[in-house]
Amino acid sequence: MPELLRHDAPDFEARFARLVSDERAAGADVRDAVAEILADIRARGIAAVIERTRLFDRWEATEASLAVTAEEIDAAVAEVAPERLEALELAAERIRAYHIRQMPGDADWTDAAGARLGWRWGPVDAAGLYVPGGLASYPSSLLMNAIPAKVAGVGRLAVCAPCPEGRLNPLVLAAARVAGIDEIWRIGGAQAIGALAYGAGPIRGVDKITGPGNAYVAEAKRQVFGRVGIDMIAGPSEVLVIADAGNDPDWLAMDLLAQAEHDSRAQSILVTDDAALAEAVPAAVERALQRLSRAGIAGASWRDYGGVILVDTLARAAEIANRVAPEHLELCVADPEALMGQIRHAGAIFLGRHTPEAIGDYVGGPNHVLPTAGSARFSSGLSVLDFLKRTTLAALDGGALAALGPAAETLAEAEGLEAHGLSVALRRADAG
Amino acid sequence: MPELLRHDAPDFEARFARLVSDERAAGADVRDAVAEILADIRARGIAAVIERTRLFDRWEATEASLAVTAEEIDAAVAEVAPERLEALELAAERIRAYHIRQMPGDADWTDAAGARLGWRWGPVDAAGLYVPGGLASYPSSLLMNAIPAKVAGVGRLAVCAPCPEGRLNPLVLAAARVAGIDEIWRIGGAQAIGALAYGAGPIRGVDKITGPGNAYVAEAKRQVFGRVGIDMIAGPSEVLVIADAGNDPDWLAMDLLAQAEHDSRAQSILVTDDAALAEAVPAAVERALQRLSRAGIAGASWRDYGGVILVDTLARAAEIANRVAPEHLELCVADPEALMGQIRHAGAIFLGRHTPEAIGDYVGGPNHVLPTAGSARFSSGLSVLDFLKRTTLAALDGGALAALGPAAETLAEAEGLEAHGLSVALRRADAG
Repeated sequence: MPELLRHDAPDFEARFARLVSDERAAGADVRDAVAEILADIRARGIAAVIERTRLFDRWEATEASLAVTAEEIDAAVAEVAPERLEALELAAERIRAYHIRQMPGDADWTDAAGARLGWRWGPVDAAGLYVPGGLASYPSSLLMNAIPAKVAGVGRLAVCAPCPEGRLNPLVLAAARVAGIDEIWRIGGAQAIGALAYGAGPIRGVDKITGPGNAYVAEAKRQVFGRVGIDMIAGPSEVLVIADAGNDPDWLAMDLLAQAEHDSRAQSILVTDDAALAEAVPAAVERALQRLSRAGIAGASWRDYGGVILVDTLARAAEIANRVAPEHLELCVADPEALMGQIRHAGAIFLGRHTPEAIGDYVGGPNHVLPTAGSARFSSGLSVLDFLKRTTLAALDGGALAALGPAAETLAEAEGLEAHGLSVALRRADAG
Repeated sequence: MPELLRHDAPDFEARFARLVSDERAAGADVRDAVAEILADIRARGIAAVIERTRLFDRWEATEASLAVTAEEIDAAVAEVAPERLEALELAAERIRAYHIRQMPGDADWTDAAGARLGWRWGPVDAAGLYVPGGLASYPSSLLMNAIPAKVAGVGRLAVCAPCPEGRLNPLVLAAARVAGIDEIWRIGGAQAIGALAYGAGPIRGVDKITGPGNAYVAEAKRQVFGRVGIDMIAGPSEVLVIADAGNDPDWLAMDLLAQAEHDSRAQSILVTDDAALAEAVPAAVERALQRLSRAGIAGASWRDYGGVILVDTLARAAEIANRVAPEHLELCVADPEALMGQIRHAGAIFLGRHTPEAIGDYVGGPNHVLPTAGSARFSSGLSVLDFLKRTTLAALDGGALAALGPAAETLAEAEGLEAHGLSVALRRADAG
C-alpha cells in the first residue's frame, strides 16, 4: 500500500517528485531496433512486414492472409452477444454526437485594407488506426479513434491490429463494423506503423496515424512523424481523484483500481483534505483487491505507482492536480464547478460524485484517447481536429496591394530578401 | 535551368517523383549527436549548454551573459530605422487581427440522457520560441511565432536565438519588443531545445517549443516531443505556382525566386497550361538572376530543385498541387476561386495575380510558419491552437448514470475490466 504523503511534511517535495517522475514512461532503449525495422520496411516492403509478423506474433502470416475479409467480420459480429453489440452502438452514437460538435468552421472576410483573408478546413485523405493486441485490445478504443476520423470526413480508414498466435478479438471486428471500417490488417508493432507510413505491398500508405501501443509502437510513431502525422506518444494511463469528506471510500477505491487494472504501470492518485478518507480509501482498496479478477495487475500498479496525498484545502489539491496535469481528473467534491475553475491542466475532467471515469471510457461521449505523463500541460485528447488540417487564404486586389505592399517591401529589404520585395514592387507598379 | 516536364510525356511519373522526392529534407544522420547533447543537458544542465554555445557559436558565453538585457533591447530598438519599426508594427497588428479570429470557443451542454458534456480551452503556461541565426534570422518569424502565443494567452514566452560570433540581429530584438517579449537567451541548436525542454540553470523549462531551425534543431524537437509539445518538423521552404496564359512572366519569375532565395534547398515549381509561359518564365528567371543580390543561393535552388510542368488543363494542375501538398500555393489564374475548389492540400493559398506569396511572409495576417515537404497533407500552419489545449468535461447525475451506466458495465465486462464496471455499478445501486 502506498504511504500517505502530507503536503505540509518537510520531505513532501522530494516524495511528490518521485511519485510523478517520468520513470513509468521510460522503457528500454528501443530507438535503434525501431529504426532498423523502419529502414527494412522502406527497403523491402511487405516482405519485411511479413517476416516480423511471423516472428513477433507467432503465426504463419502470408501476403494473402494479412487482410481481414468481410466474411470474417460477418462471422465475428455474429459471434458477439446482442447486448454487447447494442452497447457498442450506443457508445458509437454518443461519441459521434459529441465529436460532431467539435467540427471547426471555415472563415472568409475582407478587412479594412481591402485584403480578403480566411481559412478552410479539410480532412486528411487517409488515416491509419492502430489497435493494440494482448492486454489492451479494446473495442472501445477502436470507436474512439475511428469515429472522430469519420466525422472529420476522412475518406479511407485502415486499421492495423496484431494477432498474437493468429487470434483477433471478435469484439474489435464488431466495433470496426459499427464504426463503418472494412480495411483491417493483421499486423502490429513497429512494422505496422512502418507499413502505414511508407506503404508496403497491398497496404497503401496513409497521411495520419493514431492509436495507442507499446513502447515500440510509440517510438515508431515518433520516428515516422513528419512523413505522416501522428496523434501523440501515449504512455501508461493515469487518474487523479480529488475528494472531500463526503465520499464513500468504496466508490473512490474502485475508481483508483479501474485505472490500476489497465496496466501494472498505470498510476492512481487520491488527493483529499480529509484525514479519515485518506485512511479509509487505501483500506477499501485492499478489500477490493481481494475480489477483483485483475488483482495482480491492479495491485502491482497501486503498490508501485499509487499515491494518497493529504492537503489542507481543496485549493491546494487543485495546485497539485495542475502540477501532475493528469490524463483523467475526478472532482468528487460538493462543489465540483468551483474547483474546476482552479484547474488549468487535465486531459478530461469528471465532475461530481456520480461521474466515475469509466463512464468516459465508454459511453460519455468525449474521447478516451487523452494526453498522459503530464502532457496535458500542452496537448489535448484526440478529436476531429486530429483528422483535419487548415489551409489559410489571402487574396489582394490592386488597392489592397497598394496599401500593404510598401511595408512588405520594407521588411523584405530589412531581411535582405530582394526577390521578396521585387515580387511585390513589380505588381505595385502595375496596380497603381 | 530545370528541364520542362510535360504531364503527358511517357516518363512524367518518374521525373515528377524525382522532383518531389524527400531528398531535400533528408540531412546527415544527426540522431545520435542530438541524443548525446540532450542527455548531457539533462545530466549537467547549464554547464553543458554553455560549453556547446562556446564551441558552436564561437563566443565566450557565460551564465551571466546568456540573457539579453532590457538595455540591450532598448539599444537595438534605437538602432533600427523608424520605417522598419513601423513596418514591424503594421505586420504585428495584422497578424494579431488574423489570429484573434482563430480563438476557439468553449462548449457546455446537457444532452437527452441528462449528461452534461463539453470542453474548455486554455493556454499552455510557458512556450519557447526558437529563432534561427545566420541565413534565416528573420524578425518576421519571431512575430509569426510570438503573436499567436500571446493571443492564446500564454503567460511566459522565452526566445532562444543563437549568436554566431556573439552577434544578434537588432531587428530580431526590435521584433521581440514589438511582440511584447522580454525573455531572450543567446543560445541555439540542439542545446537550446534541450534547455527549453528540460530547463537548465536560469532557463526554466517550457511546455511547448515552436519555431524553425536547422537539421539539429529539427531532430532535437523530435526527440523532446512528448516531454514538451512542438509545432512541427520544418524543412526547406517551397512554392508551387499555378498560372494560366494571362500572366506577366517577370512577376512569376520573381515569385519563384523569392522562394529560391531563402535557401539553396528551397523548391519553386511552376505549373501552367500555357506552353508559351512555360518557356517565358524560365527565361525571365535567368534574366532576374543577373541582378539579384542573392543570385548564388536562388540560382542553386532553381537549378537543383526548381521545376516547370506543362499540363493540358488547370484541373490537372490542381491534381498535381494535391500530390505535392505545397507549403505555399499561388493561383495566378483568371478564376482563382474556382480553382481553389479543387485544391485539397496546401499550407497557404494566395489567390489571383495581385497576391504574391511575399505578402504572406510579412503583412497578410495569416501565419507564415507552414507545413513543408508534403506535410500539408496532414498538418496546418502555426496558429493559436498550437498554444492552447482542450480539457473535456463530463458530469452525470443519478438519472444520467441510470441511463448510461448499464451499457458502460456491459462494455467493461466485455473488455474484462471488472473494476471499471464496479465503479459504475456501486454508484448506480446508490442512485437507484
